[in-house]
Amino acid sequence: RTLRIGLIPGDGIGKEVIPAGRRVLEALPASLGLKFEFVDLQAGFETFEQTGAALPDKTVEVLKRECDGALFGAVSSPTKAVKGYSSPIVALRKKLDLYANVRPVKTVLTAAKPIDMVIVRENTEDLYVKEEKTFDTPEGKVAEAIKRISQRASSRIATIAGEIALRRQNIRAAGAPSIHQGPLVTITHKSNVLSQTDGLFRTTAREALADPRFKDVAVEEQIVDSMVYKLFRQPEAYDVIVAPNLYGDILSDGAAALVGSLGLVPSANVGEGFAIGEPCHGSAPDIMGQGIANPIATLRSAALMLEFLDEEAAAAKIYAAVDANLEEGRLLSPDLGGTAKTEEVVQDILRRI
Amino acid sequence: RTLRIGLIPGDGIGKEVIPAGRRVLEALPASLGLKFEFVDLQAGFETFEQTGAALPDKTVEVLKRECDGALFGAVSSPTKAVKGYSSPIVALRKKLDLYANVRPVKTVLTAAKPIDMVIVRENTEDLYVKEEKTFDTPEGKVAEAIKRISQRASSRIATIAGEIALRRQNIRAAGAPSIHQGPLVTITHKSNVLSQTDGLFRTTAREALADPRFKDVAVEEQIVDSMVYKLFRQPEAYDVIVAPNLYGDILSDGAAALVGSLGLVPSANVGEGFAIGEPCHGSAPDIMGQGIANPIATLRSAALMLEFLDEEAAAAKIYAAVDANLEEGRLLSPDLGGTAKTEEVVQDILRRI
Ligand SMILES: CC(C)[C@H](C(=O)O)[C@@H](O)C(=O)O
Ligand SMILES: CC(C)[C@H](C(=O)O)[C@@H](O)C(=O)O
Repeated sequence: RTLRIGLIPGDGIGKEVIPAGRRVLEALPASLGLKFEFVDLQAGFETFEQTGAALPDKTVEVLKRECDGALFGAVSSPTKAVKGYSSPIVALRKKLDLYANVRPVKTVLTAAKPIDMVIVRENTEDLYVKEEKTFDTPEGKVAEAIKRISQRASSRIATIAGEIALRRQNIRAAGAPSIHQGPLVTITHKSNVLSQTDGLFRTTAREALADPRFKDVAVEEQIVDSMVYKLFRQPEAYDVIVAPNLYGDILSDGAAALVGSLGLVPSANVGEGFAIGEPCHGSAPDIMGQGIANPIATLRSAALMLEFLDEEAAAAKIYAAVDANLEEGRLLSPDLGGTAKTEEVVQDILRRI
Repeated sequence: RTLRIGLIPGDGIGKEVIPAGRRVLEALPASLGLKFEFVDLQAGFETFEQTGAALPDKTVEVLKRECDGALFGAVSSPTKAVKGYSSPIVALRKKLDLYANVRPVKTVLTAAKPIDMVIVRENTEDLYVKEEKTFDTPEGKVAEAIKRISQRASSRIATIAGEIALRRQNIRAAGAPSIHQGPLVTITHKSNVLSQTDGLFRTTAREALADPRFKDVAVEEQIVDSMVYKLFRQPEAYDVIVAPNLYGDILSDGAAALVGSLGLVPSANVGEGFAIGEPCHGSAPDIMGQGIANPIATLRSAALMLEFLDEEAAAAKIYAAVDANLEEGRLLSPDLGGTAKTEEVVQDILRRI
């Protein structure tokens, strides 16, 4: 099978880590029967400055027509509002209907306090519909935004959360060591204030997870503020957390803080038969150009993309190589307290594949 | 001066901690020249079940007409949506125009990693306007909520954040030991997605803090997801964090997690000349009736209320007594790893006043 993968480095360290993602895919053993073709594509703030569009139509079309998946680096947010600019990754998620943003956060099992969770974030609606307006009143300006929650999107995100919980359980049942006993999905919302919108998310998620195929999956709920509190007090208790878009955004950064560096945390934007791997970190202008960005979030994002393209064996190879690098702890980038350059970390991991 | 204080225990452990708040106020030395009168008032889920209203009109009227401040315990959120019920504290904040929710989060200075910050949360708008609607579409139900941000509310919340930063700086200048060099206000928002609503919050807060009287206050910004990340990675860096309602709600629970227990974290709902002290914890049905609730959040909330009623000397007495109890560490409630009952903690603190 040949997979055609779009490469969208974006801005800043995106340009340093996406090439690493490509190399790890190319390094996978031929015995897996996988081949890759790559297409270079543009998006980001630099692209906006050059072409007037942060997400050129061509990028969307090529992804839709020719690609099976993609790797997306990071984009710089302008420090001031810039007319006409809006985040290309948010637009891409919507245009390709990549309805789930999946963010696994785990430590090595030998950590003092091991954690192993996945945040499954709804990726297409909530406040991210970006329907805003501003009006003048006698007391000054007032702006409003719509938070939209649909039964359809809530149902499919809860369903994929249940499926991910089952898949994780299967991997454990196959003998992978784990801190979890059984599969658990935690539904996060704020229905004590938003009884209709978050209420709809909550009841729809409950219904979706009541499907007989999830009968072995335990389901619980947390109000989002208390979820953040628990995330920091007992992170080991969580397996799969499912949340509307904005809470998911916040929770996944919070969870990332638990593992010591955003440079370790991958994500995948998942739709029907298509997945974009995307490191959770940003474009990091403070360290760009120094060759010291941690490539691990991108390498794990490449693996996560492969998982959702049903190439689990290939994904497992990458995960294992990354874990071995971290467990040995000899070649670590500065964000992890090491002194290794991006290139050294990449070579160490390629060597282990 | 005589202060008339409404006592609203609410549900669960609210009934165990609010009496402790009353006792600490009564125990303040006569030399401060402060007298207290108390009025018992109702609100909460039990009140709703008994009277059909979670926040009886009488409670609001008595507070408005007769009181200088109040102590509010906690209310139980029903586990299922209950028709006609909505959170009385949210309603109270709006009805009394208590526009600022102030949540100081600090460890003792001798902690391994001391932190000392205040979250200043806008308390009247954002998604808490609770304007929601639901409609049927061919693809199922869709619900929408309004997030409303006004220049007026953003300006006054930023202004009080600046004032709090200056007040903290004055206390430091008077010789109080501190981890901070100078006053800092961090504006939190998500204007990279919500350019109009959060954009308005951001620019208005910037403008308010550009006032000459804040010339010594450093001002910076954090996107909310990255704020949560930083809160956990470098909490010592933050002094005053100002945020719209919902982010403030989430951030304050996150900050509370850093100090080990929600049982330590106070808050005040502050309006013009009126303040309600409110512990950040909930009604804790799991431990209610056992007499083991930590009273400290409530005692600190009583002190915080006094601060905003311009009784700083009285507030300082309570803070010092609580800190002395914690620093000695002999009589701690179970949430802090101790075995003391609520009553023992209260007596230890009263003894120190
Ligand atoms: C850059 C920003 C628009 C984006 C988001 O909020 O989704 C980022 O925080 C993320 O999590 O991918
Ligand atoms: C109980 C709930 C409505 C409330 C809120 O969201 O404001 C609580 O979380 C708080 O922080 O006081």
